[in-house]
Amino acid sequence: MVKPLLVGIDGGGTKTRVMARRVGEFRPLLDRAYPESNYQSIGMSAVTRVLGLILDDLRPFFPPDHREVSLAMGMAGIDRESDVELYLAALRELGYEGRAVACNDARIALMGAHGGDVGAIVICGTGSIATGLTADGRELRAGGWGALAGDEGSGYRLGIEGISAVFRAYDGSGAETGLTRQLLALYGKTTVPDLLDVLDGGDGLPVRAVAAAARPVLELSETDGVCREIVRRQAAALAGVAGALASRMGRPDFPLALMGGLLRNVPGYADLFLTNLKSAYPDINITSPQGDAAQGALLLAERLYGQGRWKGTDL
Amino acid sequence: MVKPLLVGIDGGGTKTRVMARRVGEFRPLLDRAYPESNYQSIGMSAVTRVLGLILDDLRPFFPPDHREVSLAMGMAGIDRESDVELYLAALRELGYEGRAVACNDARIALMGAHGGDVGAIVICGTGSIATGLTADGRELRAGGWGALAGDEGSGYRLGIEGISAVFRAYDGSGAETGLTRQLLALYGKTTVPDLLDVLDGGDGLPVRAVAAAARPVLELSETDGVCREIVRRQAAALAGVAGALASRMGRPDFPLALMGGLLRNVPGYADLFLTNLKSAYPDINITSPQGDAAQGALLLAERLYGQGRWKGTDL
Repeated sequence: MVKPLLVGIDGGGTKTRVMARRVGEFRPLLDRAYPESNYQSIGMSAVTRVLGLILDDLRPFFPPDHREVSLAMGMAGIDRESDVELYLAALRELGYEGRAVACNDARIALMGAHGGDVGAIVICGTGSIATGLTADGRELRAGGWGALAGDEGSGYRLGIEGISAVFRAYDGSGAETGLTRQLLALYGKTTVPDLLDVLDGGDGLPVRAVAAAARPVLELSETDGVCREIVRRQAAALAGVAGALASRMGRPDFPLALMGGLLRNVPGYADLFLTNLKSAYPDINITSPQGDAAQGALLLAERLYGQGRWKGTDL
Repeated sequence: MVKPLLVGIDGGGTKTRVMARRVGEFRPLLDRAYPESNYQSIGMSAVTRVLGLILDDLRPFFPPDHREVSLAMGMAGIDRESDVELYLAALRELGYEGRAVACNDARIALMGAHGGDVGAIVICGTGSIATGLTADGRELRAGGWGALAGDEGSGYRLGIEGISAVFRAYDGSGAETGLTRQLLALYGKTTVPDLLDVLDGGDGLPVRAVAAAARPVLELSETDGVCREIVRRQAAALAGVAGALASRMGRPDFPLALMGGLLRNVPGYADLFLTNLKSAYPDINITSPQGDAAQGALLLAERLYGQGRWKGTDL
């Protein structure tokens, strides 16, 4: 007899990773990357195409009774209850008849990082967010309000502050900075006003283009006062977000895992963030994530299956 | 004999105002408002339609020789040399054969404010910019780099800071503020996460929607600490932009005219800006604008005519 199938989908900002395994087995049947699936950047019909590709690849593994499939997706495009319904409707439209749950990708990252146990994560890459699971089962969140009004400490925010500082240096309303030369080289421009091209970006917010400026801002921060101040302020802002979450976690020594490119791959930035955070919350226990977001999605799929429910956002 | 015709076009962010008069006459033949004409928000084909409407209305006043028309347009959508060419090409496409010049709308505001004489302006409404004309004929500019990385002290910036503060208060990473209730009412939302709708805004940056939040931020700034701090910081940032211009004006007592809704209609905000500016540049001479931007455009058209040139951006 074919065992029930569990599917975990991690729909991040640049790609969609899918893992699938049988109930009670460890080895994945499928672990594959697909194009991005954030409807807020690519539209819902493009998302439905990506989900169609994924279901095509999964069907060979489906048990004869399709209801013996449990699928959990954590998507960067889900911020509100109405977003959840959009993604579930896309699955139905594609003829999917199994169990399904959809949530924000930060939630599956949290599930993956602590295996569904008490703990919190701070993700800081192009965007930023902090989420946590308390001992009494509450899921907390701070930050993650997007590039325009939130995402403290993120690559976008470091980048836009850097670009802004270059404009101010050009005007004389801000200090001179070596960043001017770096950003002109990065974007292939010859004059500072030409940097407006980076911000125009046609339709939508030029999030990735701006976030590309984060690297030179971070690299120069050891020698350039303007960059140092930007990095200092953003690391403190991110610590403020994490601290707001920490204050609600209910115990001082909860485990906190740091995730996302800026906290995983830029040690100086992670250190600065932690120095800020630990000055207010010295007992936080910094841990490595146990698993990644796709594994967290698999765990959610397993719980959904174990509960015998067909869909849900509040497992 | 029909005298030559001068046309001034002020293409602001929300409407396009057109004034026309004969050379040597004072009374305008036409003074009318048209839809907006910023190609960066509505696209070039929509702009061409607006310019078509304007030319249709002007043709009855054209002298028999169409080359006896001199037209100057200052457009919110012009930031780079390539933008100038876009607008001039649209005129040609419409069959316009007279003299023409195109520039940023801040430039015609400056011409209008000081009648083409030495002086500077600070415009602060939805966006912000400072421009000035020096005794040796140089045109200076500071700020005006757009909502994402500039426009210090503007309605957009007050608004986005306010929205951001509401998210932070909701998370607990920022102080409580009465602004939360005000912004939920303003945007017709019931929960803070729903405010994300305001920022999504489909394609393009939700500049006007965000700038609508400036009013409650300013109104609450007398009693609410969070709003007071936002207003204080933005007024100082705008003073920084104006100060960068002032330092290059070449004489300490140049006349400065304050323009735009936030400086004309919100006395408390204008006072705060001036207090900041005058602490660094005490000799600046605050004046009222002599004329508006459309009159400035007419003045540019007259100079273009007087020079006998067909087009130009550097009159």
